[in-house]
Amino acid sequence: MNTFGRSFRITTFGESHGKALGVVIDGCPPGMPLAEGDIQPFLDRRRPGKSPLSSPRKEPDRVEILSGVFRGKTTGSPLALVVVNRDSREEDYDELEAVFRPGHADFSWQAKYGIRDHRGGGRSSGRETVARVAAGAVAAKFLAERGIGVTSRILEIHGVRDPDGMTAEIEKARDEGDSVGGIAEVRVTGCPPGLGDPVFSKLGALLAHALMGIGAVKGVEIGDGFAAARMKGSTHNDAMTAEGFATNHAGGILGGISTGQEIVARIAVKPTSSIGKPQRTVDRDGKEVSISIRGRHDPCIVPRILPVAEAMVALVIADAFLEQAKYGNLPRELPGSGR
Amino acid sequence: MNTFGRSFRITTFGESHGKALGVVIDGCPPGMPLAEGDIQPFLDRRRPGKSPLSSPRKEPDRVEILSGVFRGKTTGSPLALVVVNRDSREEDYDELEAVFRPGHADFSWQAKYGIRDHRGGGRSSGRETVARVAAGAVAAKFLAERGIGVTSRILEIHGVRDPDGMTAEIEKARDEGDSVGGIAEVRVTGCPPGLGDPVFSKLGALLAHALMGIGAVKGVEIGDGFAAARMKGSTHNDAMTAEGFATNHAGGILGGISTGQEIVARIAVKPTSSIGKPQRTVDRDGKEVSISIRGRHDPCIVPRILPVAEAMVALVIADAFLEQAKYGNLPRELPGSGR
Amino acid sequence: MNTFGRSFRITTFGESHGKALGVVIDGCPPGMPLAEGDIQPFLDRRRPGKSPLSSPRKEPDRVEILSGVFRGKTTGSPLALVVVNRDSREEDYDELEAVFRPGHADFSWQAKYGIRDHRGGGRSSGRETVARVAAGAVAAKFLAERGIGVTSRILEIHGVRDPDGMTAEIEKARDEGDSVGGIAEVRVTGCPPGLGDPVFSKLGALLAHALMGIGAVKGVEIGDGFAAARMKGSTHNDAMTAEGFATNHAGGILGGISTGQEIVARIAVKPTSSIGKPQRTVDRDGKEVSISIRGRHDPCIVPRILPVAEAMVALVIADAFLEQAKYGNLPRELPGSGR
Amino acid sequence: MNTFGRSFRITTFGESHGKALGVVIDGCPPGMPLAEGDIQPFLDRRRPGKSPLSSPRKEPDRVEILSGVFRGKTTGSPLALVVVNRDSREEDYDELEAVFRPGHADFSWQAKYGIRDHRGGGRSSGRETVARVAAGAVAAKFLAERGIGVTSRILEIHGVRDPDGMTAEIEKARDEGDSVGGIAEVRVTGCPPGLGDPVFSKLGALLAHALMGIGAVKGVEIGDGFAAARMKGSTHNDAMTAEGFATNHAGGILGGISTGQEIVARIAVKPTSSIGKPQRTVDRDGKEVSISIRGRHDPCIVPRILPVAEAMVALVIADAFLEQAKYGNLPRELPGSGR
Repeated sequence: MNTFGRSFRITTFGESHGKALGVVIDGCPPGMPLAEGDIQPFLDRRRPGKSPLSSPRKEPDRVEILSGVFRGKTTGSPLALVVVNRDSREEDYDELEAVFRPGHADFSWQAKYGIRDHRGGGRSSGRETVARVAAGAVAAKFLAERGIGVTSRILEIHGVRDPDGMTAEIEKARDEGDSVGGIAEVRVTGCPPGLGDPVFSKLGALLAHALMGIGAVKGVEIGDGFAAARMKGSTHNDAMTAEGFATNHAGGILGGISTGQEIVARIAVKPTSSIGKPQRTVDRDGKEVSISIRGRHDPCIVPRILPVAEAMVALVIADAFLEQAKYGNLPRELPGSGR
Repeated sequence: MNTFGRSFRITTFGESHGKALGVVIDGCPPGMPLAEGDIQPFLDRRRPGKSPLSSPRKEPDRVEILSGVFRGKTTGSPLALVVVNRDSREEDYDELEAVFRPGHADFSWQAKYGIRDHRGGGRSSGRETVARVAAGAVAAKFLAERGIGVTSRILEIHGVRDPDGMTAEIEKARDEGDSVGGIAEVRVTGCPPGLGDPVFSKLGALLAHALMGIGAVKGVEIGDGFAAARMKGSTHNDAMTAEGFATNHAGGILGGISTGQEIVARIAVKPTSSIGKPQRTVDRDGKEVSISIRGRHDPCIVPRILPVAEAMVALVIADAFLEQAKYGNLPRELPGSGR
Repeated sequence: MNTFGRSFRITTFGESHGKALGVVIDGCPPGMPLAEGDIQPFLDRRRPGKSPLSSPRKEPDRVEILSGVFRGKTTGSPLALVVVNRDSREEDYDELEAVFRPGHADFSWQAKYGIRDHRGGGRSSGRETVARVAAGAVAAKFLAERGIGVTSRILEIHGVRDPDGMTAEIEKARDEGDSVGGIAEVRVTGCPPGLGDPVFSKLGALLAHALMGIGAVKGVEIGDGFAAARMKGSTHNDAMTAEGFATNHAGGILGGISTGQEIVARIAVKPTSSIGKPQRTVDRDGKEVSISIRGRHDPCIVPRILPVAEAMVALVIADAFLEQAKYGNLPRELPGSGR
Repeated sequence: MNTFGRSFRITTFGESHGKALGVVIDGCPPGMPLAEGDIQPFLDRRRPGKSPLSSPRKEPDRVEILSGVFRGKTTGSPLALVVVNRDSREEDYDELEAVFRPGHADFSWQAKYGIRDHRGGGRSSGRETVARVAAGAVAAKFLAERGIGVTSRILEIHGVRDPDGMTAEIEKARDEGDSVGGIAEVRVTGCPPGLGDPVFSKLGALLAHALMGIGAVKGVEIGDGFAAARMKGSTHNDAMTAEGFATNHAGGILGGISTGQEIVARIAVKPTSSIGKPQRTVDRDGKEVSISIRGRHDPCIVPRILPVAEAMVALVIADAFLEQAKYGNLPRELPGSGR
């Protein structure tokens, strides 16, 4: 369903070309200062049209808090955040109604629901992440008040790790009517030890759920990740010293529980599915057709995924923090933790 | 907590050296033939001591069904499966009570709970997966009755993809008192289109949650995964033809919903944390000590993770199947699905 | 938290004098025709000022569907329904900021959250039920398409069972600056057998949860309810005949599962807490004060609770229907069911 | 499903004549001393055959803790409690396989699942409450450590409020081959203010869910309950003074949140469905038959429901306590609370 989290829980709604996108945040503790100004910068970061490489669409994306704040502070009641959709040129999408775009949810959505809002992808559009980013901004504020920070960066684009080269790769793809993918990293600093559950809801499992739940993400790894599969135990195990852990191959999580070290997660982002190059596909009657996706599409979605990935990670950490807060509270003094 | 799933839901319990391990399965539909004999072979596959390369520990692991079956069929009531622990030599672990083993949950567990059953890792032990495998066997039977199969295989060990080489890598690590990791793959055949939810509970997200929730798993990818991050859209997008999808880069999932193609997931498994080589660590008082993990430990956990990974995937698919069954039911005839 | 239901799940938000009230409905099946016109009449029924006996406040309460509908049909995506608050005279409530009104949530709310939106009760206001009624309208439509109806009526007001007498009781209370309570009944017709779970989520338990979750409700009974406690088994047991059940003392539920008979639930509604008569209470500093609640308040809330109670019952039945739909589907031919 | 609670969560399993009954408790905080001896007395209280008026069946009901305790203390891992069934004379129930007993779940169960373990009612048997009582004992211990107590008493049997008269009513019913119902009350002392959620999960709603989820319970009320429906606001509202609340008509809950006063709930218990007197019913083929339920059945279930009702209330309060613990923690000093 459209709910995520246990104690810091969000429920999102809205389609790319519907009236509005929004989110209800349930479980944000009372007494936290909050205003639209805390959220808007996160949405602005997500907004397209900020660089020559992202799509030139105009989406003002003004967030409004409908409930849950009184005299500038959260009350413990659910926060409803809404962003009204503007500039929805429905006609742009008429030709997409009858065909299944390769790489998109069109076919599988039709299989699941038997009905489909095809306008800009409807709810399967990347625009759905507006609600996640708005919610993530609230989670980030909750975490910041506790000294916990969430940051992200691009590691590579189309296999290229040099920043200039990354830009060139994106420009080249755009000029070819094609698209490229990449890898990004999210880090959490200041996270206390003890977050996460030891069996199914390991902190890494929650992060993997959260990050793989972003459209276009096809892989997630924690700490050394896939590289760990090529290492020996004597190298991968993080030794402990009187000053704390000597290394952080584990990415800040052992046995599903945070260690107090920096948490490190990486995501693999596939190339944007919408490309100008002609592609083979079928229409609703099963007839083969060729399709060229016109219009405003990012040739690489990685830069715009960063605030979304940060939001999802912030939501997971805030949720795990509250879950753990039931028992007591964090953190205790630990030998060898370097805290 | 210790519950996984929504409609096909399991709750597990038990520690490595406690009285028993077990699982309650809630939501298994009534009328399905079920006996211990359906579950035992899955536990036998998971059992150590089956190859010279796995630990020689004796764990008979006999499963008993305590409830939910009447005259050989499930009744719709919860199934309780229990495996009694035998041969628990508690004294083997006395020396581990006061030190935090590198790579293990010892430190983070202490931080979370302030109390720790150190015997063989307690609940953080790999032995906890006995309950998952038992539950997965029931899910697998449910799926098999619907023509859905779950299989797995090892792709590489310590970077080596040749089967003979894999064995040599493991033997070498064992002889060195060290350990190695590897990569495994799980595939689902016969899965109907329409499973999974489009936003947070994308099928890939549920699989990532399930698989990253297995101890030692540090990375998960769907379809081309991290390789997709180095591809172009024109290559990665799976074209559709009148006979169905031409390729399966997406790994059977588009927009979080199954397409009817084979579902493909891969996991990165870290090298076993327990090694004979001396390692630096600290004890409960923060004093630095050297530790050599003695006793029966697999130098590579990948072979024994296969039935666990299959179990988790089977549980996710069975759960998604029932969730979707509310609406209708699967499958409908779809143009271009090749079904 | 602010979520109710499992498969037909709602999440509400909003305060009495905030910007808006709303609800996100998750799980409503795709393909159901839906428009604001299906919901508005339910809100109109709930609206005050419709009889000389209810408060004269003007609340237009126009519902707007923000998402989840495409070309007049539900899509399976979450439905967001919003009602903008108008005419919120905040100043009316200034004097209530510092005192705890007897019978209200003021004190307990302060104890829970340490912060309180005192304007008209904030989220503890009866106005919160606007969101429930809107959601209930969608559930009612879902049920109506399956031949299931939900109705309600007043059984007694202040102990009086004659309709004219009821009105007189309310008028008398109003004239005295006092208030009265009463008893109402909700019935479900056309409900198939097999809904509800046999242990914790008995259909009666779900109904009790739903109905006792309405402010002012202090008692719930199913079928003969408290009268059953004074009966003998030979009288209370409903005999079965070839034509179906001979009686319905059980209220349509046996062992927590619907029988196919009419479902009957009753609620006890306490007298409105806001009264003009002076009452003893304390302020935030613990100082004793006298308070007279001025303004627009219903001397009896029972008439306006009917649509809320129907909404909650409709939500429970719709949810139980979808939960059961996983297994199959309803209804089967049953001997002696009279169906 | 078979899970109850959010933060203090239980999952039960087992049938009347299966191998065992049991419960997994998830969320019990670590570090609490716990042994079988803490639980057994609660099961002994529930046990039949303790008075000449309850059924003479022999059920030793020895509880065993399978997991979650280490060196006499809870570890934070799930507690599994199991009671092995003995003395299950299956043949006693052969004649019940083909008929639907009036007042029992037989018919509705068949409608729901299409298969039924008829032996002693299977999972719909009152014996299922063994697991609840075992779990409730753990919750009670958790609460007792925080100064919170849960007690219960019988208020009336078959309309009679005098204890001697109650006994006579039960004896008379037994001699007639009939049964009688009654009313019981549960009270919670020492409960801090602030427990419970203000909208759907009002503390009263959670209690109603919990109590109405006990077989044979047909009504629940909080505080004055149905009597409140016949009162005026000026009488029902609990005045506040500098020493705290002057009265407790509300039953310790305002706006769904505990006030710090005693919590008072009452339940209506129907007469036992199994009676010796001949009753009209139908068999599986719809043929009308007469049935006399032979064997060991309590002519009145109210005395044996007391420990079950206490268990359910203890579970609700423990759960609400942990939910609230996330935010803070309880209790704060409150003006006028008398605390």
